[in-house]
Amino acid sequence: MNEKELKKVIGQIKPLDPVFFKKAQTRLDDLTKPKGSLGRLEEIAARVVAITEELRPRAARKRIYVFAGDHGVEKEGVSCYPREVTAQMVFNFLQGGAGINVLARQAGAEVSVVDMGVDHDFRGISGLLDRKIARGTGNLARGPAMSRKQAVQSLAVGIELARAARREGVNLLGCGEMGIANTTPSSAITAVMTSESLEKITGKGTGIDPERWRKKVQIIRQAIRKNHPDRKDPVDVLAKVGGFEIGGIAGLILGAASLRIPVVIDGFISGAGALIAAGLSPRVGEYLFASHLSVEPGHRAILKALRQKPLMELDLRLGEGTGAALGMGLVEAAVRVLNEMAAFSEAKVSRENSNQ
Amino acid sequence: MNEKELKKVIGQIKPLDPVFFKKAQTRLDDLTKPKGSLGRLEEIAARVVAITEELRPRAARKRIYVFAGDHGVEKEGVSCYPREVTAQMVFNFLQGGAGINVLARQAGAEVSVVDMGVDHDFRGISGLLDRKIARGTGNLARGPAMSRKQAVQSLAVGIELARAARREGVNLLGCGEMGIANTTPSSAITAVMTSESLEKITGKGTGIDPERWRKKVQIIRQAIRKNHPDRKDPVDVLAKVGGFEIGGIAGLILGAASLRIPVVIDGFISGAGALIAAGLSPRVGEYLFASHLSVEPGHRAILKALRQKPLMELDLRLGEGTGAALGMGLVEAAVRVLNEMAAFSEAKVSRENSNQ
Repeated sequence: MNEKELKKVIGQIKPLDPVFFKKAQTRLDDLTKPKGSLGRLEEIAARVVAITEELRPRAARKRIYVFAGDHGVEKEGVSCYPREVTAQMVFNFLQGGAGINVLARQAGAEVSVVDMGVDHDFRGISGLLDRKIARGTGNLARGPAMSRKQAVQSLAVGIELARAARREGVNLLGCGEMGIANTTPSSAITAVMTSESLEKITGKGTGIDPERWRKKVQIIRQAIRKNHPDRKDPVDVLAKVGGFEIGGIAGLILGAASLRIPVVIDGFISGAGALIAAGLSPRVGEYLFASHLSVEPGHRAILKALRQKPLMELDLRLGEGTGAALGMGLVEAAVRVLNEMAAFSEAKVSRENSNQ
Repeated sequence: MNEKELKKVIGQIKPLDPVFFKKAQTRLDDLTKPKGSLGRLEEIAARVVAITEELRPRAARKRIYVFAGDHGVEKEGVSCYPREVTAQMVFNFLQGGAGINVLARQAGAEVSVVDMGVDHDFRGISGLLDRKIARGTGNLARGPAMSRKQAVQSLAVGIELARAARREGVNLLGCGEMGIANTTPSSAITAVMTSESLEKITGKGTGIDPERWRKKVQIIRQAIRKNHPDRKDPVDVLAKVGGFEIGGIAGLILGAASLRIPVVIDGFISGAGALIAAGLSPRVGEYLFASHLSVEPGHRAILKALRQKPLMELDLRLGEGTGAALGMGLVEAAVRVLNEMAAFSEAKVSRENSNQ
């Protein structure tokens, strides 16, 4: 996929049609409950109707793509885990023992692990989608994380996977990631795309101490000064201070929006991917559901920029798609309300006095 | 069950043992994730360990008791739905078409509907637990809602149902209710038990207009003045300004706590039941999980009094146990994390640098 083809995908993302919100609300108001009493579940259900343009959408077939990649900036000591953990966790995902595997099983969602650029040779390992762009990004503190071509390639992978999901009958997507040090590029992206101060949006990641945190802020500042990412050109931002898995997430969101598939996003790193996607097409926000508010302080700025209200606040900061898995359960619940609740007339329940 | 036997049940409610929290946290910290990164899911898992005193508790068998009852105060026009709707909704529950049925199916929980005092003759109807105390309470604006003996009877039903659940292998309980006008006794209970102002804790229920709301506040004020419920005697409060279904909920909570079964509570009316239970034994709070913060303004005061932080804020105000069903999914997810995630050693994942 080249940039021209990417633009074509972006052009396929349409604004949601208010008529479908109205039709959905008419149905919701006819169900055996006081009007509006299911609160945000009703909002979710109506939006899924508008996204899919189906009056009885389904959310039963659910898939979470977990994008994995390594980061050159890990060499700067910005994380308290060594780089090897990215590959080790990929094996953990494949064996079904990670947090995302457990929470996806609980949600009834498939987990599909994508090697976007892990610094490990996985040849001969089954169950992993090999989309490796390189064995880790460049060190963004010293130069661009990747070339512009690689950035487009990472977006293309996400778009391609959204298409595969559509072909395979998936009706609800989730995204997650794994990549030691990836809160660093995510903070850089957030700083560039939202203009919030670096101190405010840089967090402790997996749990660094204050000294390492100061270093992380300094590294991100250096990366932005060195690379001059252009806010008005999100592909440039992704290339200069991003990551392969972040590009995969952004691409999945663009692809899903172009195909009218709702996507539940996870926490901070997925949010950084969503910022890139929203930079390319502001309409993608209408196709997203923000599952939760992460402990990472930059996440609030991201959700504000995306105009998303998180579904939950559970103090999560694991990533992998764990929050998305929980959120997908709520989206499915909302869709089932629309499909499975009895209407007043069917159930012979009296309406409120004002309607009689 | 008489009051002496009730006191015996209350005496069986023990404080949670800190040793089990520690053991649970040791296990959680050994799982392949940064320490504490699953936030509130870890808190839930640890508390379920302490409640059950099992290091690998289960939450797979889930049951929601939906307690239904009618209210004499409905005659005062405090709701916008007619009293017949309570019985109509019971039929809807039995047919599987109500909100609680849908959300319980999504959560994989059984729904068990209990007639605590609906003003309808259900004889010959299968699938309903007949525990009818009377065909609706008395009008609390004019006198006590029920006798003290009936209040104890309603608590006894809940306790008995917790015991039945234990015998039948249920390891996670939820509660919900149906009863036209039951936000009125719930606001009365909340006012008496928390000393918050009536205006602050009285809400729109199923959606009344400002005029009816003012009438509702006045009716509740009248009920409290007329009946003099004694805050230090929660059975007296339940009898004078409560409801049969509220007593059932309070009893279920007491029974579950005495048997070390975690209970997920629903919204405002369930919260009023929890206030009665907590008045009888302040320790019950340790056995509860508050699923969500309801739109009903009094719910915040209840959760504050119970020292509970809700798991979700989804603007729900339907009742029936719908929020509890969603919350049970989160509790089960938390328990599965504890049971199913791989440990660092098993998965051959490196620990953080500080531990190496």
